[in-house]
Amino acid sequence: MYRNKVTVNEDLLRERQKCTFDSKELTLWLDGSSEKIATRHELEDNFLNDPLLQDKVPAKYKSHKEIYEDAIRKGCIVLEKLEYLQSIGKSDMRTYMQSLGGMLGSAILKDGNPITLHFVMFIPALLGQATPEQQAFWLSRAWSCSIIGTYAQTELGHGTFIRGLETTATYDPKTKEFVLNSPTLTSYKWWPVGHTANYAIVVAQLYSQGECKGIHPFIVQLRDEETHEPLPGIKIGEIGTKLGMNATNNGFLGFENVRIPRNHMLMKNSQILEDGTYIKATSDKLTYGTMMFVRVVLVQDIASYISKAVTIAVRYSAIRRQSQIKSDEPESQIIDYMTQQYKLFPNLAMYFAITTAANWIWNMYNNVTAELHQGELERLPELHALACCLKATASADGAKGIEELRLSCGGHGYMDSSNLPATYGLVTASCTYEGENTVLLLQTARYLMKVWRQAVRGNPLPPTVEYLSNLARGTKQEPWDDSLMCIVKAHQAVAAGYKLYRLNFYVHTYRYSINLFAVIFSFHRKIHLATQNMDRKIKKGRSPEDAWNETSIELMQAAESHCRAFIVMRYVTAINELTTVSKELHIVLKQLCTLYCVYWVLQRTGDFLRFSTLKKENVSALQSRLEEMLIAIRPNAVGIVDGFDIRDEVLGSALGAYDGNVYQRLYDEAMKSPLNQDKVNESFHKYLKPFLKSRL
Amino acid sequence: MYRNKVTVNEDLLRERQKCTFDSKELTLWLDGSSEKIATRHELEDNFLNDPLLQDKVPAKYKSHKEIYEDAIRKGCIVLEKLEYLQSIGKSDMRTYMQSLGGMLGSAILKDGNPITLHFVMFIPALLGQATPEQQAFWLSRAWSCSIIGTYAQTELGHGTFIRGLETTATYDPKTKEFVLNSPTLTSYKWWPVGHTANYAIVVAQLYSQGECKGIHPFIVQLRDEETHEPLPGIKIGEIGTKLGMNATNNGFLGFENVRIPRNHMLMKNSQILEDGTYIKATSDKLTYGTMMFVRVVLVQDIASYISKAVTIAVRYSAIRRQSQIKSDEPESQIIDYMTQQYKLFPNLAMYFAITTAANWIWNMYNNVTAELHQGELERLPELHALACCLKATASADGAKGIEELRLSCGGHGYMDSSNLPATYGLVTASCTYEGENTVLLLQTARYLMKVWRQAVRGNPLPPTVEYLSNLARGTKQEPWDDSLMCIVKAHQAVAAGYKLYRLNFYVHTYRYSINLFAVIFSFHRKIHLATQNMDRKIKKGRSPEDAWNETSIELMQAAESHCRAFIVMRYVTAINELTTVSKELHIVLKQLCTLYCVYWVLQRTGDFLRFSTLKKENVSALQSRLEEMLIAIRPNAVGIVDGFDIRDEVLGSALGAYDGNVYQRLYDEAMKSPLNQDKVNESFHKYLKPFLKSRL
Repeated sequence: MYRNKVTVNEDLLRERQKCTFDSKELTLWLDGSSEKIATRHELEDNFLNDPLLQDKVPAKYKSHKEIYEDAIRKGCIVLEKLEYLQSIGKSDMRTYMQSLGGMLGSAILKDGNPITLHFVMFIPALLGQATPEQQAFWLSRAWSCSIIGTYAQTELGHGTFIRGLETTATYDPKTKEFVLNSPTLTSYKWWPVGHTANYAIVVAQLYSQGECKGIHPFIVQLRDEETHEPLPGIKIGEIGTKLGMNATNNGFLGFENVRIPRNHMLMKNSQILEDGTYIKATSDKLTYGTMMFVRVVLVQDIASYISKAVTIAVRYSAIRRQSQIKSDEPESQIIDYMTQQYKLFPNLAMYFAITTAANWIWNMYNNVTAELHQGELERLPELHALACCLKATASADGAKGIEELRLSCGGHGYMDSSNLPATYGLVTASCTYEGENTVLLLQTARYLMKVWRQAVRGNPLPPTVEYLSNLARGTKQEPWDDSLMCIVKAHQAVAAGYKLYRLNFYVHTYRYSINLFAVIFSFHRKIHLATQNMDRKIKKGRSPEDAWNETSIELMQAAESHCRAFIVMRYVTAINELTTVSKELHIVLKQLCTLYCVYWVLQRTGDFLRFSTLKKENVSALQSRLEEMLIAIRPNAVGIVDGFDIRDEVLGSALGAYDGNVYQRLYDEAMKSPLNQDKVNESFHKYLKPFLKSRL
Repeated sequence: MYRNKVTVNEDLLRERQKCTFDSKELTLWLDGSSEKIATRHELEDNFLNDPLLQDKVPAKYKSHKEIYEDAIRKGCIVLEKLEYLQSIGKSDMRTYMQSLGGMLGSAILKDGNPITLHFVMFIPALLGQATPEQQAFWLSRAWSCSIIGTYAQTELGHGTFIRGLETTATYDPKTKEFVLNSPTLTSYKWWPVGHTANYAIVVAQLYSQGECKGIHPFIVQLRDEETHEPLPGIKIGEIGTKLGMNATNNGFLGFENVRIPRNHMLMKNSQILEDGTYIKATSDKLTYGTMMFVRVVLVQDIASYISKAVTIAVRYSAIRRQSQIKSDEPESQIIDYMTQQYKLFPNLAMYFAITTAANWIWNMYNNVTAELHQGELERLPELHALACCLKATASADGAKGIEELRLSCGGHGYMDSSNLPATYGLVTASCTYEGENTVLLLQTARYLMKVWRQAVRGNPLPPTVEYLSNLARGTKQEPWDDSLMCIVKAHQAVAAGYKLYRLNFYVHTYRYSINLFAVIFSFHRKIHLATQNMDRKIKKGRSPEDAWNETSIELMQAAESHCRAFIVMRYVTAINELTTVSKELHIVLKQLCTLYCVYWVLQRTGDFLRFSTLKKENVSALQSRLEEMLIAIRPNAVGIVDGFDIRDEVLGSALGAYDGNVYQRLYDEAMKSPLNQDKVNESFHKYLKPFLKSRL
């Protein structure tokens, strides 16, 4: 509907005409069914056609305070709509997630929504950590939004290492209350919502009977429900402007002898009895759930932001004409330059790669959670290890890719009206929140080290690391043959290869046994040198911890390689097994998959030359294959991003709109600037004129 | 002076105590003399101690319009100060550059200064392109700031490819005037200053006697000098908010039959006589000057932004404690994690590498310019090629490095009060302005291709590409020996290696001769495959232009490798030849240099395995060497950044201040937020409360 308002750019029209497959089929495949497409469109219409949710003056022109106030205004409208949709049976948890975050959410509020945390953290934390009685009381109030909650864990001085948190909750058996305190400035909570919420789940060190029992969650009222004034002892405010997400109202929170009743500790797992007796949870792993849920969902969100950025950059590259490939021809569409294709298409392929991995881990998460409910904890470490490295790799690749796409749009990509800076702001944030990427990769590395040891001993391994079994046993790799399966296996060999062997040398063989040398020797020839390295370190008296630290660059790279091997494996398998699409679409999807595989071999040629059967002689053939794929994808690039079916209001970009009227939109967006409402700005009379005149 | 105000963080104190060299000596070496340090400090005091230039409320909290108006206020104060300094003989061109841009400029106005372009583009363009008579008239008015100018070249639809500009200036011999027009929306100028200037140098297609004579510069009055109202036919405004630099007031500019006198064309090079006769400039290359000047200066600016970011990240990493390396010890300083060192120290080394290259090309620029004044144009293409790839590589490396440093500060790096987002905004902008990086790299590649052909023929080459001579002749490389000179030569081999051989195959041998195969054969074994590739392309009937385009990914990489070889060469040579510093400092500088060299071999292991004498067996020794350098640099890291002697107001960062009171500063910066002035924001009463109450 919104696609026919104005004339479509001629270059874009031509691109669409020469597309070799039906982009609507791609939409159907991605969404799953025409009903799902219709539901999505209906939801988008409901929100995006509402004039109250449209900006006359884009938020970027406003002050920080105005941005917040407008976000609250819009946030309340969104919640009212959601409530209405629910009342007529047209809303579920997914609807909430979509309209408060992700694609639709970031269309309504480009810089974040201060109410999102209520649904994404506060309610899930209640579900995961409150007892049935506590849920009965709090969940109904939270669901109906008669209270607004936030989640307060990270402190000024403590992030990913949550055991180090300093906030204390000391149980007082006399009054049957906990007393919350922020003993230092570094213990102030940092990042929870500042002005918007009246309740919080606060993670604090529990003290009872004079002993510290570790971190636990507590529900704390922050503000009076009538006046919104902070309650006595509550120090609260916002933390100031950031690289992006400036409407999320991230805040700080300190406590000075704040008393809460005993039953405000969330006691699904551990408990405090009235007399102060502490009852420990049956398993430490039970609190993993929420954390993994957020990471798994995050990977899907990142994929959707990539699809947004790549749609913008591909359409713009088809419209933008610059310079000449041949001097007797008109200026070329920049999408015809192979250097431009090299910036665009690997990121286009990345969307499919990450989405495939995201869907797969989402299913795994649901299976493992179902097992969990039956008391089955076995696959939890495997899921945890995979979620860690996938969150890290997807966010790092995604941020890098979006920035590359932004730069591929030249100076216009620097304009906020391209919406690429804000999209980058959303994705790069996820490199450090919900577990800092390097820390997460090292957690995966620790798991890989453990299963590698099992593999060497001949024990069976869980599915996602099963490939290590053969490699650990020193099974000879097949010679290089350029097939995608060969590339998949080579990725696995790299992951298994040198990274793990050093890790084992430095840390594990040292602590456990030495006979794994023999095994790895058959796998890798550089064992002699590595042994020397390790021996030298041991001679110098390095402890296992120091050896771990001093090997951690390679450990981090090992975890990333493992993740890449996983992504490539899932992607190639999914495309190979695909039977439900037309031949035309299948060809295109295969080209993208091939591009992704080849691209990553060429990005890490050194690793592949060292640890797989790739030979120097094969590399330039791979480079040619990459170039062939770029050429093959070129005519369908616009068709592919059209198939993502992202409507203009969701793209929110002057460069990426369906009609391709890039320059008119850039101009129109500029004209919305309050500075452009006056021909002469008052600063001329106030400062500039007196200054200029004093020079004469 | 500013360093003793408060207690210094204990971890930082300890770092400073254990430093093995005198950081003041490093400052002395970097600045050049104690007089220069004193002059710099005096200049900084003059600007930064002025309360009128200090922000009570940081600009980030203000609206776009307020930010602009405050920038004009500050801009006028800066100009007044500069005028005073000049009147007492304490100012030169350098003082202007420093206080309007670079380190000091970005301390006064973090998001850019709308008056900077007057000095950085308008005046240099007058100097480079106006006749002596024109200079006599315009320069005095410009220098005294009785007019404020801007430079209008880029258009909405045309950037780096300036031949494609659409704005027209048609000479009318009857009235002896030019008539300026913007025939299309895409021809609107985009990026010149919008509200601030009253004059502009406009680059337009010159038409005379019915013929287009190509692009030329014209001086055009934009606004009335008294009222500042846009003159008739002038369409002017600002282009809206951007990723960064939001106070620079970048604007748009269109013309509708705007008439200017004949002598408003800048006629130093080409001329229009009264009757419309066109007199062409003696050489096309004469207009290169200004462009190269800006690129050369830019490399120095980028280096200084890197020093800022690395100071912030290193100090923060020494203060921040997180997690434990050993379980029985307190939380570790994050700078003790090798993964953190891996993020910090290669970027620390990069500062020295880029600075060395920047100083070298600055001298070369001055020499070549001096030759130019004597009519000597010979070294111009060499300088141009070097300036292109150095601007591209420094800006890309710099932006990537600053972002890595920002991420190394975790969530706090995302805060604007870290000043890392704004610093990134400044540097990433330079990846696309003043010549888009990919286009610049391909210009260098074209030059390299030309000199490679000369080398193969046995002709002597200019100094910066002289290394290609031996390699083109197929001289055998020395075996790998891990020395820095070996690494330098390996970088050169990579640059010369496969990149150029394919380039020659695809484009040049095709067009020129085939006998260079034999030469390259001796240099590289994969010639057979490459020949096949080329033959296949020719069989398919590819034209030279298409072959160029289809090889451009490797051409771009070839230019980057050449630049890396240049940087490494200059860096190693400079450090090896350094005799004026103490042994203690020299050791540290050598460690950094070694780290940089080894780091880049490991970043591109595949290239080195393929094109240099590096063997697989050498790689893990290089990895160990990298780790050794990280460990060696660790104790001096804080001392090194202290040696940069960047005062707190220039760093502008809560994380990077000399005293290390990170958490207090983060909190204090947050408290400056206008949102924190009220305990309850009015949006609660207006939107949130009515909504919450309706739920009950």
